[in-house]
Amino acid sequence: MANEMEEIKTKLGITVKKEEDLSEWYQQVVLKSGLADYSPVSGCMVYLAWGYSIWEEIRNFLDSKLKALGHKNAYFPLFIPESLLKKESEHFKGFTPEVAWVESGGKEKLEERLAIRPTSETIMYVMYSKWIKSYRDLPLLLNQWNNVVRWETKATKLFLRTREFLWQEGHTAHATKEEADREVLTILNVYQDLLVNLLAIPVLVGLKSEGEKFAGALYTATLEAIMPDGKALQAGTSHNLGQNFSRAFDIQFITKEQKKEYVWQTSWGVSTRLIGALVMIHGDNKGLVLPPRVAPIQIIIIPIYYSKSQAEVIIQKSKEIKNMLLSSGLRVEIDDRDDKTPGWKFNEWELKGVPVRLEIGPKDLEKSSVVVFRRDTLQKSVVQISDLLPVLNNLLNDIHQKMLERARKKLEESISQAEDYNEFKEKLEKGGGFIKVSWCGRLECESQIKNETGASVRLIPFENNEPFKEYCFHCGEKAQKLAYFAKSY
Amino acid sequence: MANEMEEIKTKLGITVKKEEDLSEWYQQVVLKSGLADYSPVSGCMVYLAWGYSIWEEIRNFLDSKLKALGHKNAYFPLFIPESLLKKESEHFKGFTPEVAWVESGGKEKLEERLAIRPTSETIMYVMYSKWIKSYRDLPLLLNQWNNVVRWETKATKLFLRTREFLWQEGHTAHATKEEADREVLTILNVYQDLLVNLLAIPVLVGLKSEGEKFAGALYTATLEAIMPDGKALQAGTSHNLGQNFSRAFDIQFITKEQKKEYVWQTSWGVSTRLIGALVMIHGDNKGLVLPPRVAPIQIIIIPIYYSKSQAEVIIQKSKEIKNMLLSSGLRVEIDDRDDKTPGWKFNEWELKGVPVRLEIGPKDLEKSSVVVFRRDTLQKSVVQISDLLPVLNNLLNDIHQKMLERARKKLEESISQAEDYNEFKEKLEKGGGFIKVSWCGRLECESQIKNETGASVRLIPFENNEPFKEYCFHCGEKAQKLAYFAKSY
Repeated sequence: MANEMEEIKTKLGITVKKEEDLSEWYQQVVLKSGLADYSPVSGCMVYLAWGYSIWEEIRNFLDSKLKALGHKNAYFPLFIPESLLKKESEHFKGFTPEVAWVESGGKEKLEERLAIRPTSETIMYVMYSKWIKSYRDLPLLLNQWNNVVRWETKATKLFLRTREFLWQEGHTAHATKEEADREVLTILNVYQDLLVNLLAIPVLVGLKSEGEKFAGALYTATLEAIMPDGKALQAGTSHNLGQNFSRAFDIQFITKEQKKEYVWQTSWGVSTRLIGALVMIHGDNKGLVLPPRVAPIQIIIIPIYYSKSQAEVIIQKSKEIKNMLLSSGLRVEIDDRDDKTPGWKFNEWELKGVPVRLEIGPKDLEKSSVVVFRRDTLQKSVVQISDLLPVLNNLLNDIHQKMLERARKKLEESISQAEDYNEFKEKLEKGGGFIKVSWCGRLECESQIKNETGASVRLIPFENNEPFKEYCFHCGEKAQKLAYFAKSY
Repeated sequence: MANEMEEIKTKLGITVKKEEDLSEWYQQVVLKSGLADYSPVSGCMVYLAWGYSIWEEIRNFLDSKLKALGHKNAYFPLFIPESLLKKESEHFKGFTPEVAWVESGGKEKLEERLAIRPTSETIMYVMYSKWIKSYRDLPLLLNQWNNVVRWETKATKLFLRTREFLWQEGHTAHATKEEADREVLTILNVYQDLLVNLLAIPVLVGLKSEGEKFAGALYTATLEAIMPDGKALQAGTSHNLGQNFSRAFDIQFITKEQKKEYVWQTSWGVSTRLIGALVMIHGDNKGLVLPPRVAPIQIIIIPIYYSKSQAEVIIQKSKEIKNMLLSSGLRVEIDDRDDKTPGWKFNEWELKGVPVRLEIGPKDLEKSSVVVFRRDTLQKSVVQISDLLPVLNNLLNDIHQKMLERARKKLEESISQAEDYNEFKEKLEKGGGFIKVSWCGRLECESQIKNETGASVRLIPFENNEPFKEYCFHCGEKAQKLAYFAKSY
């Protein structure tokens, strides 16, 4: 038993504390909980079954919301001819430094090299210009679930920055700017719903600055979460592309009044980096902690027995309980491996972040009860089997609410205010977080701040964005708006 | 109205007959029914919403079957370093002629070029060798849903041969050959279930010859369908890889008896080419005909009215019927566009292959009935609304059965037998189909036949594969087995 505990500690357990070395802690949790692994391709990772199944839960949630709003899924080619990628110049400038290029197929050199999509605006919109002729073809609401490649030169980090990642990208075309504006916000709300109600991740929402908006967009709306080291993480973005792409790709339609006009477009996406955010925000020193609604397994049942005859009875009872819970829609598994002790299993499932554990032993059975363990607070309680279903349903909801509240508290505590540049830099050094400032809104000013401190504008609030000082905290010009700055992932 | 019908015919309708020009007919059905479109990237297509939603139905069906058998989904990198792809020599020889290569990322030339996966054996198995240590790690049962690229030099064809396509690839590792054999057959059965019970596509199953097996496999099991032009189409394959890859990638495990052994592996896949098979087999001169279980919309409701006051009542009733059918699990939509006539809608939904249409007009409503139209036979009947649910459930099952029977009859009629090479060539010219022959089984012999006639061994039956003649129909050597030859897609 001592040996086994040793093995658990060194092989399975997390050997550093979250509060002491976040980066090493994060890597250990991701690898040891079975979310992902490094691959032999530099900067690319393997999504392991546990990590991928979380992505499936995210996808199911989001996909049904998007479909309910009238969006349809489609799939466009992985490759983008260079000439197409170049058509919208701001877009090309933004993405070309991180494009992977295919230059030969089989034994032949290609006449034109092909970009592997870093995002699909250009390959999609060349089709949109073919398909959209009349106001009757609008709105066009397409989404795709795919892989994209961005040839990062910065250090990569599992889930948070990899050269290939999985995401969804929505691309819509509308008759008017107002409709496109509305779509941008509708999607922002869907993303917030996903973050708050599935992932228990509270976010700040607002607009990106000129320097931070999507390459080729009119404006970008964003959702920003806070990580334990005080750095922000962009959890999703929703862009109004204006008519920038429709002009570059000649996407025109005949209006009801028989006039020819360019369409207004939006694009928006969230990616598997959400899984990284999930780990960072909710994990603890025992490993991953999954919010119940996104957990691929919500309840793990561990049968405990000391003899073969006990085993039969207990496993039988475990199966009955499993089936009862399954049939009410809960995601439940029994860990009945006979080469692992209950203690070993406790540790493994805690590491993997399963929200609730049921322990069923001979003594519990005598009393028609089970031990219920909740992963977020590590608390145990004894529950009568006859009460189990309502108790578990309440418990899962409670775990979600408590996890969300804890995260929201941290988000709120991470927001501070700086009167001037010195205070700003001081706060950046001490804990970071979101720092509210009165800002001039000039691209030149934000570039200087980013170069000098590494912090960027994370968002400008939609409302109540009046500056609280007359002059910009950095350059001293007239302050135009309130902005949230932070360092970021 | 005359003008409109003209427009329907030229824009929407199929302008050639299936029996007269299959290739042109196929292309028109795929494009005009909204399954797919050509893209600006040579050899790559766009999966439109209608085509992609059929893929989603296929994926949902297969994914739940695979998960029920213990398989888990994961995701591996798109890129394979050239040195990895080379590790299993037969595999590399088979795939290297059709690999697309990434040679630079951003502005930098890569040190080693990266293949875009044509299939993922090599990038997966380098990980398997890291993960698999003991018999306790077996079986390892992983699957991925992804995109692969094969740089075809032959003419491409929507769904049936494109340079990028979507598929699933399963990759398992086992302790013994027997287990791997069993897995190969289990998957073959799952695929047959998918083909027969979801897609109404009957197939022949059997083993591939040496010349046709997967590059690097011990043997390949296959499912073969017949197309209307007498050419076969490989609908799915399941390979026993033996220890070929485990030796090349050093995937060894410690047995219960503490010995070190190489694992036995399988891989298997089906792709979006199934959608092409669906079109080919079931389509008619009005367009696509979808088997009900895979149809994204099973029932389309067309409200028919001649005044605004009628419209209100009829649309209201249509919605009631829709909700009744939805709540019993059917996939139903109402086409209430007010800029199209009922006739236009009839044509469009027939073209798109929706199995059942309900027509609801003022006269029907008076009699509390609706007109039910079935797409496969083009027959109409009148059904009382109170009987609608059981009638439709029976009808959808009946459509599936009838479509399957018709296709099975064609498959059976496509099989003939040839005594000698002359008869073989004659039959190949006249209608093609599967030609049963007594065959020597030699690679050299099958290569000659393929070069001379374009026909290949499609399969060797699992059972009853005794040759009916003593000597090979082609080369005159001793006949070893019964083989089915055909030209193929």
